[in-house]
Amino acid sequence: MAKKCIGVDVGGTTVKIGILDEEGTLLKKWEIPTRTEECGSRILPDAAESILAVLKEENIPMEDVLGAGLGVPGPVLTNGYVSRCVNLGWNGMYPGEELSALLGGLPVKCNNDANVAALGEMWQGGGKGYENIVMITLGTGVGGGVIIRQQIWNGVHGMGGEIGHIHVRDDETEACNCGSKGCLEQVSSATGIAREARRLLAATDRPSALRGFGAGVTAKDVLDQAKAGDEVALEVVERVASYLGRALTLLTLTIDPEIFIIGGGVSKAGQFLIDAIRKYYVKYETLSEDRPLIGLAKLGNDAGIYGAARMVLG
Amino acid sequence: MAKKCIGVDVGGTTVKIGILDEEGTLLKKWEIPTRTEECGSRILPDAAESILAVLKEENIPMEDVLGAGLGVPGPVLTNGYVSRCVNLGWNGMYPGEELSALLGGLPVKCNNDANVAALGEMWQGGGKGYENIVMITLGTGVGGGVIIRQQIWNGVHGMGGEIGHIHVRDDETEACNCGSKGCLEQVSSATGIAREARRLLAATDRPSALRGFGAGVTAKDVLDQAKAGDEVALEVVERVASYLGRALTLLTLTIDPEIFIIGGGVSKAGQFLIDAIRKYYVKYETLSEDRPLIGLAKLGNDAGIYGAARMVLG
Repeated sequence: MAKKCIGVDVGGTTVKIGILDEEGTLLKKWEIPTRTEECGSRILPDAAESILAVLKEENIPMEDVLGAGLGVPGPVLTNGYVSRCVNLGWNGMYPGEELSALLGGLPVKCNNDANVAALGEMWQGGGKGYENIVMITLGTGVGGGVIIRQQIWNGVHGMGGEIGHIHVRDDETEACNCGSKGCLEQVSSATGIAREARRLLAATDRPSALRGFGAGVTAKDVLDQAKAGDEVALEVVERVASYLGRALTLLTLTIDPEIFIIGGGVSKAGQFLIDAIRKYYVKYETLSEDRPLIGLAKLGNDAGIYGAARMVLG
Repeated sequence: MAKKCIGVDVGGTTVKIGILDEEGTLLKKWEIPTRTEECGSRILPDAAESILAVLKEENIPMEDVLGAGLGVPGPVLTNGYVSRCVNLGWNGMYPGEELSALLGGLPVKCNNDANVAALGEMWQGGGKGYENIVMITLGTGVGGGVIIRQQIWNGVHGMGGEIGHIHVRDDETEACNCGSKGCLEQVSSATGIAREARRLLAATDRPSALRGFGAGVTAKDVLDQAKAGDEVALEVVERVASYLGRALTLLTLTIDPEIFIIGGGVSKAGQFLIDAIRKYYVKYETLSEDRPLIGLAKLGNDAGIYGAARMVLG
């Protein structure tokens, strides 16, 4: 019987779990609530209990399971140590070791969820067929994951691929969550795109369909109206794309992967967004025309399950 | 008898060659002129001939030589292909394979000289004891070399670590050699530092010892006068250091090595320069106080020989 890998993606609201085979076929997936009370001490026992129950239900004996991978929403050191996971209430623990003990000594690997999602996209998503990718997740914030030679590159201090805090803008006046000014996240996250729209609307009296959304204008509104041809919305998208193009150029001149994979809620704008980014990327990256590709993520919320399971294969 | 590795560092003026043992002791080094005539077709035969003669002279039999490494001043693809090496006259060739054939089939590995120097510094220089380093060479231009898990990371298209062309300055008006504006090289190479000094001197009538050097003011003059307390020179150093601090922050948020190694002619300013850079690096890198170290290169012009020989060990 083919061997199985278990992928566990711990989020602030739910824990997503999947059973995959070694070829990367998702055989079964489910989720359980994340119980963050009592410093999150129930999260891993809940997950382990659920995994053991499903394996039994599916008649999968433990000896057919190669191991489990665990993605967590915070920095994970090379030795598996998590000093703090704000969304889960965790403080100073080795979640991989804990889950392993709860699963009868099954090998468990643990890494940061953005990195794990990048590995998932490399295995079965937009980066399939490539071994070196950088994934950029444009959500409420901007996350990044770096895969080099088919392995997650976390950085020595857990800051590898923290590209949301790359400096891209000298004239930014507001401070980012991290304390700096001019971070990529400030202009290209969903929050940042909405803010750019509000700024541009306030700075001009040009007509725009975006005015109808008031202060509650979202990144999706901006992208939808830009696609529909609204000039102010298009200008916001151009500005956002220029900073993303700048960031991809920086990533090319440091990591130079085969492909950039753009994911997260904002990436639902699809090829329209990719084309806008590429316009600036090609303009700024002047060293070589043989440069990394840009593609869309394909696995959506399942990327974490795939990537966590892929960690088991080394 | 202990096995030997040969390091060959091809420059535009001389080819530096060294014989090292597996522990990284430089047993012998010498150099020969680089003959760039006839599209550089004599360079590798000259090197091979010289290597064979010295091995004979030193009574080192070929079976004691594990292999040779070759550093060349231009981009080298993963398969060893060099499409163009301007300083040598080379066009479309596999220099590693050619040198191997000239040395009777000895295994030869080839890579870009900046990357090779970084590997040398990791092995026996400022990065000794570390496995993940980024080297920044501040010379006429600004070069970079990335070592991840003890191996050169060249990038997929040969642009990994091309940090001289990282964008750090939005208000730059002049164009860089690469065609962009605001590259790190424009402000922190020896050429760039001298230019910043000329700019600042022209923009003010404050007294400065730098005025005595006229238009021929060099980076060394700026650093020497800054150390001596000249206020205008100090302001130039602050400006240069701020952009370097910005670049190290970018490199932390992408690659996050154990240590940055600063080399090249400008780095002769020593700890004074490192301290100036660190001041801004610590200010800009706000994500974690546990961050990459900054150190000085130690091997000078021999880094290429060491790194080339180290490639032999895999």
